[in-house]
Amino acid sequence: MGKNLVQKILEQHIVEGEYKPGEEIAVRIDQTLTQDATGTMAYLQFEAMGVPKVNTELSVSYVDHNTIQIGFENADDHKYLQSVAKKYGIYYSRAGNGICHQVHLERFGAPGKTLLGSDSHTPTGGGIGMIAIGAGGLDVAAAMAGEPFRMRAPKVVKINLTGRLNPWVSAKDVILKVLEIFSTHGNVGVVFEYGGEGIKTLTVPERATITNMGAECGVTTSVFPSDEETKKFLEAQERGDVWQELKPDDDAEYEKVVDLDLSEIEPLAATPHSPGNISKVQDLGEIEVNQVCMGSCTNSSFRDMMIFAEILKGHPVHPNVSVVVGPGSKQVLEMLAENGLLKELIKSGVRLAENACGFCIGNSQSPQTEAVSLRTSNRNFLGRSGTKSANAYLVSPETAAAAAVTGKFIDPRKLEELDIKYPEINMPEKFIINDDMIIPADADLDTQILRGPNIGEPPSNSPLPDDIKGLVSIKVGDQITTDHIIPAGSKMKYRSNVKKYSEFLFEVVDDTFHDRTKKNQDAGQFSIIVGGISYGQGSSREHAALCPMSLGVKAVITKSMERIHKANLINFGIIPLNFVNEGDYDKIEQDDELEMAGIKDVIAGGQDTFKIKNKSKGFEFDVILELSKQDREKILEGGTLNVIGIRMSN
Amino acid sequence: MGKNLVQKILEQHIVEGEYKPGEEIAVRIDQTLTQDATGTMAYLQFEAMGVPKVNTELSVSYVDHNTIQIGFENADDHKYLQSVAKKYGIYYSRAGNGICHQVHLERFGAPGKTLLGSDSHTPTGGGIGMIAIGAGGLDVAAAMAGEPFRMRAPKVVKINLTGRLNPWVSAKDVILKVLEIFSTHGNVGVVFEYGGEGIKTLTVPERATITNMGAECGVTTSVFPSDEETKKFLEAQERGDVWQELKPDDDAEYEKVVDLDLSEIEPLAATPHSPGNISKVQDLGEIEVNQVCMGSCTNSSFRDMMIFAEILKGHPVHPNVSVVVGPGSKQVLEMLAENGLLKELIKSGVRLAENACGFCIGNSQSPQTEAVSLRTSNRNFLGRSGTKSANAYLVSPETAAAAAVTGKFIDPRKLEELDIKYPEINMPEKFIINDDMIIPADADLDTQILRGPNIGEPPSNSPLPDDIKGLVSIKVGDQITTDHIIPAGSKMKYRSNVKKYSEFLFEVVDDTFHDRTKKNQDAGQFSIIVGGISYGQGSSREHAALCPMSLGVKAVITKSMERIHKANLINFGIIPLNFVNEGDYDKIEQDDELEMAGIKDVIAGGQDTFKIKNKSKGFEFDVILELSKQDREKILEGGTLNVIGIRMSN
Repeated sequence: MGKNLVQKILEQHIVEGEYKPGEEIAVRIDQTLTQDATGTMAYLQFEAMGVPKVNTELSVSYVDHNTIQIGFENADDHKYLQSVAKKYGIYYSRAGNGICHQVHLERFGAPGKTLLGSDSHTPTGGGIGMIAIGAGGLDVAAAMAGEPFRMRAPKVVKINLTGRLNPWVSAKDVILKVLEIFSTHGNVGVVFEYGGEGIKTLTVPERATITNMGAECGVTTSVFPSDEETKKFLEAQERGDVWQELKPDDDAEYEKVVDLDLSEIEPLAATPHSPGNISKVQDLGEIEVNQVCMGSCTNSSFRDMMIFAEILKGHPVHPNVSVVVGPGSKQVLEMLAENGLLKELIKSGVRLAENACGFCIGNSQSPQTEAVSLRTSNRNFLGRSGTKSANAYLVSPETAAAAAVTGKFIDPRKLEELDIKYPEINMPEKFIINDDMIIPADADLDTQILRGPNIGEPPSNSPLPDDIKGLVSIKVGDQITTDHIIPAGSKMKYRSNVKKYSEFLFEVVDDTFHDRTKKNQDAGQFSIIVGGISYGQGSSREHAALCPMSLGVKAVITKSMERIHKANLINFGIIPLNFVNEGDYDKIEQDDELEMAGIKDVIAGGQDTFKIKNKSKGFEFDVILELSKQDREKILEGGTLNVIGIRMSN
Repeated sequence: MGKNLVQKILEQHIVEGEYKPGEEIAVRIDQTLTQDATGTMAYLQFEAMGVPKVNTELSVSYVDHNTIQIGFENADDHKYLQSVAKKYGIYYSRAGNGICHQVHLERFGAPGKTLLGSDSHTPTGGGIGMIAIGAGGLDVAAAMAGEPFRMRAPKVVKINLTGRLNPWVSAKDVILKVLEIFSTHGNVGVVFEYGGEGIKTLTVPERATITNMGAECGVTTSVFPSDEETKKFLEAQERGDVWQELKPDDDAEYEKVVDLDLSEIEPLAATPHSPGNISKVQDLGEIEVNQVCMGSCTNSSFRDMMIFAEILKGHPVHPNVSVVVGPGSKQVLEMLAENGLLKELIKSGVRLAENACGFCIGNSQSPQTEAVSLRTSNRNFLGRSGTKSANAYLVSPETAAAAAVTGKFIDPRKLEELDIKYPEINMPEKFIINDDMIIPADADLDTQILRGPNIGEPPSNSPLPDDIKGLVSIKVGDQITTDHIIPAGSKMKYRSNVKKYSEFLFEVVDDTFHDRTKKNQDAGQFSIIVGGISYGQGSSREHAALCPMSLGVKAVITKSMERIHKANLINFGIIPLNFVNEGDYDKIEQDDELEMAGIKDVIAGGQDTFKIKNKSKGFEFDVILELSKQDREKILEGGTLNVIGIRMSN
């Protein structure tokens, strides 16, 4: 019985367990990446582990999120990261060098390697044949310390591509189609493996767009085989030596095979306010567009910028549209400067943003009230643009360009009526290689770590008590994202100051949460969060667990919970629970007192269901506890940091 | 007796009064400019004047300040400005087109014209032979309505330039030298007129750097003659038709003549925290630099960007320095893209910022804690960078480039030791002309004005009552600046929402001010502010008068008051008073009730002293009232807006 590609790569990295879908395995991590928003806390935790040097093949610390820099905090974080990188042997990609995923693909990614990144779009690396997984910062810190990454061996779904994309349709439309088929939930524990004749028609950056935004389906990751296209890309990056061919066995087994004919895909858009609300662009009506944002880790490659620039060439941007362009990396920008397309973009009147995450994370370029904003990024959650009343649509570079030129949301195929031909973009045979903005990983133990006044200690948790009695400090509905739990945007600068950052917990849902929960904590009470379906979807933000932990939250009880968030809860010693009977959700109210008697024994004993008593309402309800042995150890000890601390001191 | 250049230009524009230094004159304004931070309120006021169309030769509305756009407010302001421009016949320079002063010089400025701008660096236009003056937004709105600008005929100081600048020394060093000679105070009512053989060696952008930062001396404006250099610049902008020769008479009279030998000027820096703290760069020691910011309205011309780029060419930026570059305009950026220097900048690893005010106004690129930040901008006040502990130095592009390459604060002449030669920059014979990002001024009365929810009405004032009884709502000490009265920074986005912005009045001094004063107002009480020496110094921020007015403040009584703030108080119908006996200041307390019986007759009757009764303490004290006839009319009617309204309705 043949093996699929995912199994092949993972089996080469298994250090514990056996590859059986659903069973826990521990996997060696070859590479890690962090970005500055999650990285500062990850490195504070890494420091706390007391390891003298990173134990991976390669670790890279990127600065791409907080590059607007209002107040001293962001620049202090960058300096901290630079000094940590120097001390522990980590590559440091400076602010202005580009978005972590784009730069990693260009300069570090390698087929067949495992990559763990403290950013949910780490699966971008799947475009080059890596098993690239997003995780909380603490997991990445542990991987840097040499710990294997524990996961359940994934169920692998094959997406079998046939045919070839038509003009004006591109990789973004493919992943939007995949989102239409699979939706944004119900895919936990799954990996998408792309295959079929159609993959040959897609370049590595196009594949990376597809694997990048697979994150929105909630899968663990997505991966493409490594083939001649991969080789060509790596050779153009002067890294042909890391290439190897990787493909599934001919008789590989899959959980499911879904066929997708590329030639049948039309220009698509994710409409407000979810990446899963998919419509054909031509069905949306030619509404007026106020803003076009081109870039982000999904669509900022050389190929994407070229297509956008070639469409705009000779056409000034529409007078009513603000068009912002943020290239994915210094390499992309330098290529565009060399081949003249940057000049064309400037000539057209685009607003050039730094090579960084920029508009995508809502810390700049908020559109006007009730704006129609077309974005090539991957998330259009309510308010993520920074403007709550705005309607953000996720589209391809082609559709974005069509709106930039016409001021309207039109099917880009209609540009032919304006005598704009679909540009043919050839991938360069050689990219410009200039790594001056990446400081090499030469560990220097004597480096002094630079800590600004906003950089605190990573908060610690105490071991699990025998029993837990706590108040329901908040009860939220379905599909609460990490953006709901703790906001990004301009608050992100407090990531290394947990006490301050915690003030913004659940701010958009209920701004009394912090004060109430703090009061409980000060009165010696634990707190418990109750949630609905798909709790914790969205980013890999570990602060969505770390900050509640710091306020005494001991358990989260939901109808269902997303993978990365669950792992984050466990990492910080918070018990992740699901209702056995969803109806019990309705019977609980905020401020109810819940009791988990003998919880320590339940966890230590390996039980997977138990009863919680609602003392306020006078009833009991059943919850499920899906935890591995290691997860249980983490919760018992008060989190991963404590577990590693105990191991290191032995 | 010959005339100087200032007198010549002003006399051609006088509509009332006679040119005698110190005497009031009313001057016709040919051109106006606004930027988005001051412009929104200026246009709200203009709208309130009820004029169907601007009455200037040319008015331009620029967007260059709030281009980071966090939250909906800034984008809403931009849309408002665009719609107002269309309705009233104003040119609209879109976000991304560049900094108002740089773009105005390139595309609109003309020798011999008067320009009034709602930005204190409007004197940049003096580089092209204009009388270009910064003023409050209401004054600019009045000028757009066709009102003359009232000022005292200035004293003219000639700065006689001889010789030629040495390599590695540039216009920025000239104005830093001028600041060393004249300091930042004591120059009120003065205009600097540059002349002498040395001016021929300076291009128009270099002259504009000098006139721009004359603002830091506190002069009304600075001006250069219009000569062959001016003609060359205008012809390269395809605007040779607006050129005229302008020079003083050979026997012109000046208040004072100061000689300055350009060949003796060395690289200079303004050290923390004032543009007036001038040192030679070589005397500062080679301290480590953390940040270099290149751009702002002072140093973002093609010439300046070229010098910076040529020095960096082939040299990666130092690993410990964050180097940010913001070109002054789309024209500059497009020129650099065309001639390949933009590619060199990118290659060196600079962080490219949008063509806008950017770092200079502290709403982005705040440096790290205790940073040494070298900036080519014009103000280094404590905290202006956004980082209170940072040390900002104002330097030339040459000195900035030297630090970018070496990581140290070095005299740029030392670059020769590193085999970097001083680049020779030739001004282009033709600039790239592309005004696509400037929406032409075609008035369309039917345009619907777009008002976001943050855009309020300009608050109105009622005519002065016969008597005023009011409570002392705050008593402050000496040297209260407009920053103390009402903060800028991130609060700036509330400039078009006076009610909201007023909540921050005196925030740093006494954060109960707003609530107390509002309560007085709601109870039908007027309020009075009592201040010490130099009340209202700092910026020209009209909100420091407008916001108190909106809370019912009717008078400000001080030991002394700064000129521009006094003009703003008058513009909004607040009576500016000084104590006759400074000792009376000590006898007054917060919440005292003061009575000005018959104040309307006092003002209307032209009295210049009167008595105020302190009803709480039971004594009377004398105050001085220094007001022109026009000032009295404004106060009687409740402000300039009402005066113009009455005139328009007659």
